[in-house]
Amino acid sequence: MPTYKLTYFNARGYAEPARMLFHLAGVPFEDYRMTHGDGTWEKIKGSTPIGKVPVLSVDGFDIPQSLAIIRYLANKFGYAGKTLEEKAWADAVVDQYKDFQFAFIQYVNAKSAGRPDEEVERIRTEVYLPYKELYFDFLNRLLEKSKSGFLVGDSLTFADLVVVENLFSLGKNQHFVAAEHPKLLALKEKIYGIPAIKQYVESRPDTQF
Amino acid sequence: MPTYKLTYFNARGYAEPARMLFHLAGVPFEDYRMTHGDGTWEKIKGSTPIGKVPVLSVDGFDIPQSLAIIRYLANKFGYAGKTLEEKAWADAVVDQYKDFQFAFIQYVNAKSAGRPDEEVERIRTEVYLPYKELYFDFLNRLLEKSKSGFLVGDSLTFADLVVVENLFSLGKNQHFVAAEHPKLLALKEKIYGIPAIKQYVESRPDTQF
Repeated sequence: MPTYKLTYFNARGYAEPARMLFHLAGVPFEDYRMTHGDGTWEKIKGSTPIGKVPVLSVDGFDIPQSLAIIRYLANKFGYAGKTLEEKAWADAVVDQYKDFQFAFIQYVNAKSAGRPDEEVERIRTEVYLPYKELYFDFLNRLLEKSKSGFLVGDSLTFADLVVVENLFSLGKNQHFVAAEHPKLLALKEKIYGIPAIKQYVESRPDTQF
Repeated sequence: MPTYKLTYFNARGYAEPARMLFHLAGVPFEDYRMTHGDGTWEKIKGSTPIGKVPVLSVDGFDIPQSLAIIRYLANKFGYAGKTLEEKAWADAVVDQYKDFQFAFIQYVNAKSAGRPDEEVERIRTEVYLPYKELYFDFLNRLLEKSKSGFLVGDSLTFADLVVVENLFSLGKNQHFVAAEHPKLLALKEKIYGIPAIKQYVESRPDTQF
């Protein structure tokens, strides 16, 4: 079995679905969590493929970009979808998540950069909230049609992990009220109820993001 | 062979790499191009999976999200990468493209919405240009290390198509000066020099985007 090392900060962030895939598959990996501000990241940044984390090293071969990493592990471990059509739909879900995430980050960045209230509010109502509605509607429609309770096909795919981790982080930061979205809550509980996931989630570091 | 229908507007945009894959593979498809403003899109929008195009229909089975469509066709036609590691790197390239594209669109949207000059300039210098540098540097480093001249491995992947089409559109709209980026220009010429691509590109509708 190859030696896996996942490099990221001590946060869930863009690395968490990859960690969950390792735990789900029961595959050992080094969960290398850098501490913000201690100089480690500055030291290794130049040697990463894009100057960003997460990076997954497989026997020393580096793979960048979170969704590329997650899809790679999902393909290796059997959670990418069972047919090319299922794979395409899992991909479509995570790309829709990525579209939403960009809109969300625009809003978060404008707020934390102290942009004028009027600008922050415009981004919230014209960018963030429309993308959130589009994304949540899409997920709800998928779950309405789903016979398995999973987003794609009749078993778990990496799309489920990406989505529930995003909901978890949104919820932890007051951007998702589970009671208002019963289908999304049911998906979250279904995934977090899987023993290997449950055990990991209960023992993982409690970080804000 | 399944019946393929690709629905989009009469533009290259997010559909073009999919069209190029069909031409490269010599697989017939219906290239359904809606005309902006004639009401067709408004009529069909509600029946699409996300309310967005492109949508690829495969024997009537709909797949949304441009990169999901492109990766699906690449997997079917043999242009997704030869190993899981190559696939992961092709995915990383297109995800980096998507990150850049979001930054670019923020700038274009701010400009076309007539946001104040100071705000447009801030987005240009703080969002668009840093992402462009990151993206172009990444592509240049990949091409420096490439023995084949392709971005990933020793043959064409969908990542090459996504990147050169993006460069084509950036160039057509004065956001890319080929002479300043000899490696990117060489990639573009290499891909557009492939007979099936060349023939298609010479005969496709000349649209601004």
